[in-house]
Amino acid sequence: MSKGRFTLPGEKGLEKEMALLIEKWGADAVRDCDGTELSGEAASLGANVYSTLCLIRADNEWAKRHPECRQQFYLMSEPMTARSDILEIDIMKGYFAQQFLPNDNCNLSRYWQVYDRTEGVPVPVTRWSYRDGVVTVMEASHYHVYTVSFLAYQIWEPVSMRNHITNGWAEEHKLPVDIRYPEAQDHLLNVLDEWLAAHPSTDVVRFTTFFYNFDLVYNESGKEKRVDWFGYLSCVSPLALTQFEQKYGVTLAPEDFVDAGQYNTLFKNPSDKYLLWIEFNAEFVSAFAKKCVELVHHHGKKALMFFGDHWAGAEPYGRYFKEIGLDAVVGAARDGVTTRMIADVPVAETEVRLHPYFFPDVFYEGGDPVFESERTWLKCRRALLRSPVQRMGYGGYLSLALRFPDFVEHVAGITEQFRQIHEMRRGAEPWCAPFKVGILNSWGGLRSWQTHQVAHSTWNQRCYSYLGILEALAGLPFEVVFLSFDDVEMHGVPDDVGVLINAGDAGTSWSGGDRWRNPRLVARLRKWVDMGGGFIGVGEPTASYYQGAFFQLWDVLGVQKELGFTAGFRRPALKTEGSHFITEDVSTEIDYGEGSSMIYASRQDTLALDVASNSLSLACGAFGNGRSVYLAGLPYSLQNSRLLHRTLFWCAGMEQDFFVWNTSNPMTECSLYPDASVLCVTNNSGFQQKTTVFSDDGGNFELVLEPYGWEWIRTDV
Amino acid sequence: MSKGRFTLPGEKGLEKEMALLIEKWGADAVRDCDGTELSGEAASLGANVYSTLCLIRADNEWAKRHPECRQQFYLMSEPMTARSDILEIDIMKGYFAQQFLPNDNCNLSRYWQVYDRTEGVPVPVTRWSYRDGVVTVMEASHYHVYTVSFLAYQIWEPVSMRNHITNGWAEEHKLPVDIRYPEAQDHLLNVLDEWLAAHPSTDVVRFTTFFYNFDLVYNESGKEKRVDWFGYLSCVSPLALTQFEQKYGVTLAPEDFVDAGQYNTLFKNPSDKYLLWIEFNAEFVSAFAKKCVELVHHHGKKALMFFGDHWAGAEPYGRYFKEIGLDAVVGAARDGVTTRMIADVPVAETEVRLHPYFFPDVFYEGGDPVFESERTWLKCRRALLRSPVQRMGYGGYLSLALRFPDFVEHVAGITEQFRQIHEMRRGAEPWCAPFKVGILNSWGGLRSWQTHQVAHSTWNQRCYSYLGILEALAGLPFEVVFLSFDDVEMHGVPDDVGVLINAGDAGTSWSGGDRWRNPRLVARLRKWVDMGGGFIGVGEPTASYYQGAFFQLWDVLGVQKELGFTAGFRRPALKTEGSHFITEDVSTEIDYGEGSSMIYASRQDTLALDVASNSLSLACGAFGNGRSVYLAGLPYSLQNSRLLHRTLFWCAGMEQDFFVWNTSNPMTECSLYPDASVLCVTNNSGFQQKTTVFSDDGGNFELVLEPYGWEWIRTDV
Repeated sequence: MSKGRFTLPGEKGLEKEMALLIEKWGADAVRDCDGTELSGEAASLGANVYSTLCLIRADNEWAKRHPECRQQFYLMSEPMTARSDILEIDIMKGYFAQQFLPNDNCNLSRYWQVYDRTEGVPVPVTRWSYRDGVVTVMEASHYHVYTVSFLAYQIWEPVSMRNHITNGWAEEHKLPVDIRYPEAQDHLLNVLDEWLAAHPSTDVVRFTTFFYNFDLVYNESGKEKRVDWFGYLSCVSPLALTQFEQKYGVTLAPEDFVDAGQYNTLFKNPSDKYLLWIEFNAEFVSAFAKKCVELVHHHGKKALMFFGDHWAGAEPYGRYFKEIGLDAVVGAARDGVTTRMIADVPVAETEVRLHPYFFPDVFYEGGDPVFESERTWLKCRRALLRSPVQRMGYGGYLSLALRFPDFVEHVAGITEQFRQIHEMRRGAEPWCAPFKVGILNSWGGLRSWQTHQVAHSTWNQRCYSYLGILEALAGLPFEVVFLSFDDVEMHGVPDDVGVLINAGDAGTSWSGGDRWRNPRLVARLRKWVDMGGGFIGVGEPTASYYQGAFFQLWDVLGVQKELGFTAGFRRPALKTEGSHFITEDVSTEIDYGEGSSMIYASRQDTLALDVASNSLSLACGAFGNGRSVYLAGLPYSLQNSRLLHRTLFWCAGMEQDFFVWNTSNPMTECSLYPDASVLCVTNNSGFQQKTTVFSDDGGNFELVLEPYGWEWIRTDV
Repeated sequence: MSKGRFTLPGEKGLEKEMALLIEKWGADAVRDCDGTELSGEAASLGANVYSTLCLIRADNEWAKRHPECRQQFYLMSEPMTARSDILEIDIMKGYFAQQFLPNDNCNLSRYWQVYDRTEGVPVPVTRWSYRDGVVTVMEASHYHVYTVSFLAYQIWEPVSMRNHITNGWAEEHKLPVDIRYPEAQDHLLNVLDEWLAAHPSTDVVRFTTFFYNFDLVYNESGKEKRVDWFGYLSCVSPLALTQFEQKYGVTLAPEDFVDAGQYNTLFKNPSDKYLLWIEFNAEFVSAFAKKCVELVHHHGKKALMFFGDHWAGAEPYGRYFKEIGLDAVVGAARDGVTTRMIADVPVAETEVRLHPYFFPDVFYEGGDPVFESERTWLKCRRALLRSPVQRMGYGGYLSLALRFPDFVEHVAGITEQFRQIHEMRRGAEPWCAPFKVGILNSWGGLRSWQTHQVAHSTWNQRCYSYLGILEALAGLPFEVVFLSFDDVEMHGVPDDVGVLINAGDAGTSWSGGDRWRNPRLVARLRKWVDMGGGFIGVGEPTASYYQGAFFQLWDVLGVQKELGFTAGFRRPALKTEGSHFITEDVSTEIDYGEGSSMIYASRQDTLALDVASNSLSLACGAFGNGRSVYLAGLPYSLQNSRLLHRTLFWCAGMEQDFFVWNTSNPMTECSLYPDASVLCVTNNSGFQQKTTVFSDDGGNFELVLEPYGWEWIRTDV
């Protein structure tokens, strides 16, 4: 039995069981969790000790003495309709009074804003006043809708708030300290220094994470109201706004943050101001994080960042990340996408904390944690075979997991597989198709493996039909690059990219919205496809209603969407007869998820490979020397992953090479590591599968794989 | 057996059968059809003779001698992507060469336009030229999309073209003459005069219709490419544009007509220029039509207009219509909506030509014309009980109908019912609910009973989910008014309107698009509901993405639609427990047609009456003293009609009066004619129904109705 690469979550009082599991699962490290601290005994178990530290809530006494250093937030009141000259708005209505406290101690005329949403203009400061939680609008326009944008102190650090509420903790509410204030920085460095000195047995300091949490807002009942795992609202304060203005000469208004109540979510095309705000905070956060990491190193320990809570500003795919000097990054993985999101971070060591967490939602009497785990592991394994992660672990309560002996056995098998990947590939890179796949959206590289995410890995109705593309790609033999429209407009499509994918709902940052009205962008892309590129559009690609067209690249895509303006135009949606390379492995009805509707052929030579409700759901065609495919949606499934695999090869005009280091059976996949002369063939299904494996010289062989099983085969014998 | 109110379509050689049918169906008039002319014998059958006349194609020899008087049309070439400096565009590609001939004999720089659709600007005339059907764009921007807007002569009058092609006629192609030219007017008046003199036995001249056909464009294969029953493109010519400019001081560019290839369909918010263009032509058409009608009267005959082909400019709900001085209007009716569209025309006599036409698509060996007819008649009967039409008839080939004796019997029954309505109601108006229903859209009264129509009565996927509202209203006891946003913005909602309905796809003229950004409009409507009005939104009502909101009246409606920008906001869509007045008669799953998606409650007090796929499909709530209901769609069915009936009463806050002159069984309806002291109770289903009828004094009685049957009951005994 192998050992290593595994971090065991510790639980106080379970030292004996921990020792057994260290053996059973081959753990070489133990760690504490939020809300637990390991006993001294844990340190003597012979494994490295990972200790959690969240600096901004580490010294609540100091935070209480320095209320001016609490983090702030921008909130917009619930919109209200004026029914008379006077409108009174209870600004905290709908918000959790234990989470936020309006900051009325600042210059309200500068940092607060009252908006007439019906006119779309701010209300002059002379026409409103604030007192005791209520903004009073004077001379209101009757039946106009008004909102108040206001600064609020965060009086309960949101991650501890969530855990506190979820687990019924009784501890004092923690205040989040804002490192924007020099005195806060000085104090936190001292806290860290003392903490490091006080934890001699800690080998690795696990920052969870740094200084500003993503946007997590609770409603008046203390339940989640909204979450944006990519939000930067916690970074806001009058001081930050002043420094921003000094640095860039740009003034940010409250509206730049509340964004008419949409708060610049990841799904919106980011404004130039908002991108600058991210940049501003990323630079600042990285600089102070670097100081903290240096201090950790000074104490002879390693520094690890949890890619989760409080990661705003510590953008792993941003330009300042490497300067922090971290030794490792760990993050939660529930699927292939999140595994790749962690695996591809430019850092020496990465670690995944696999789902399911040992929490009562899965580990209940009669529950089936093995089933949950199997589903997750199959997705993660695909990703791990493409991009290595150095370590793995779990989260939650060991005591819960121990009640399920079959799960304990099952995890032993996963840890074996995890280590075997490393042992077999020996650092070698997997073979990839001879062209890269580019994901094209408004964010580009900054959001590598982070498209269509609300709270990462959480299922969302507006996301799953698109997220399946990345989930498939996480385990397919392609190098994936994330490109922004700016990248393409300025530099063109990189030479090694063979196929571009633009996928998303109309208007969102993923589809691109009004970016598609840019003549330079559309002309560059048309030319690129015309010269031989491949273009895949999913859902509502290249969509912006302009000059009579909705999908701006209708000529490339070969399809268009009827918005209801030209319903009298005759455009029958008829399935093209005959078989096609793309759909050759389709055995059951294709699942397009939420799908699309009213899609018709915009060119005569478009092939309609699938049609439902008079709408093309899968279509393809040629544009000059290039090719394009339209898909109504692509949730992840084995069939859809195979469909995408074929689609990519077809779009690249390389369908003759599809069966190079590939398998015949869509339930199976293979990964070749040429430099290690080893091949891994996996069965991604819960049934025994027979498959033929094709090499690159026309040779092939047959294999029978057990359910969820794999085979490693040497290619040099 | 009663007699009268029935026009029999004649067929040459069937004079004996016609005499029998005149008796059987109680006909008091015979008419000829397009492509047939009645023999002299027909005139001696003892019935009035209706004769068809289409003036603009009546003298083809003259039209051939005056090619400059042919009607023209604006077309946009298929969009083409430039791949080099030179782009050649075959402007007739995709069009039917037998229908259109480019007019290159005009000032091309004024009347043609080449557009760079990627930049959204016209190409300077110095950068393109035309020769032999091809426009050559010089110095084209690579990979930009270009279109050519060009004038074309109509070289085949489209209605005769359609009939010619459908029926395989061999006759010469007819040219449509444009009455914009004084010499054409003079000639056509002469033609009419001579025709009238030559047809002494004709009692009624049936104009089919006047001078300009709706937009009907065929593709290169001679099949329908697009149809817009409301189009005004046939009215275009350099002379018309010049006169327009002289009259209004406004220049119309080709782009004002081709509209980026959307051609100002009925589904688009009409621009001010386009409304002026309709006005300009309506005034002109009505003036010349008046001359024709006066000539008919001069010959002692009556003038009837077919509300169908060539009706552009003869807007029955327009401001110039009455001046024409018509005696009657006839139109095809396939359902309640089209029946009401004809019934409500402000003219002395109206007539419906009922479906099915005696054509082979229905009257084939093994076909079931009785079934087809029953479906149509049930819908039309509902409408006829609300608004009288004086006469009825059929179209097509008698010879086909005669092959189905059961159909001949069935029609006899329909004619009996038709006449009985008149005999029983004796001119009395039906009882209506004490409030009117207003249909609110961009068109208002001009498009009374004409919303969501492509080619009238033709099923369309983007229409049926909305058209069901009008279909239900066509037979429900409500007065219906059609209001434009301008009406409401300027004059408010009329006092007698109790409930407004806004129904349509986002952006269309029916929903209203950017009209909803108008603060005056939304404020007036909010106030109106707040003061007690009712508001029903269907599909994507009040939708324009602005200031963070999509449904602008989210506060009134109580619902909002997620566009994908705020997918991380927690808005569970949970059905409200308990029964509700609106849904009390719902017995099977409600059919919302195409429906909507991602609709969530925008107010805490919204009642979610129905939820599917995490989206509210039926919701209601209060707004001040008013009420609102949201429906995802409402195709016509008996259940949906009842649902709308209840919804209207609930929205008006009058649910306690729902059972006044109403029935208990949703398969049945009743119409009271107070001044005639008679009540009609109908069974709209194909099964026997028992129902209780409630009067206005608390009294009620039970009835059993045969399938499709009715009972007339005296209320004064």
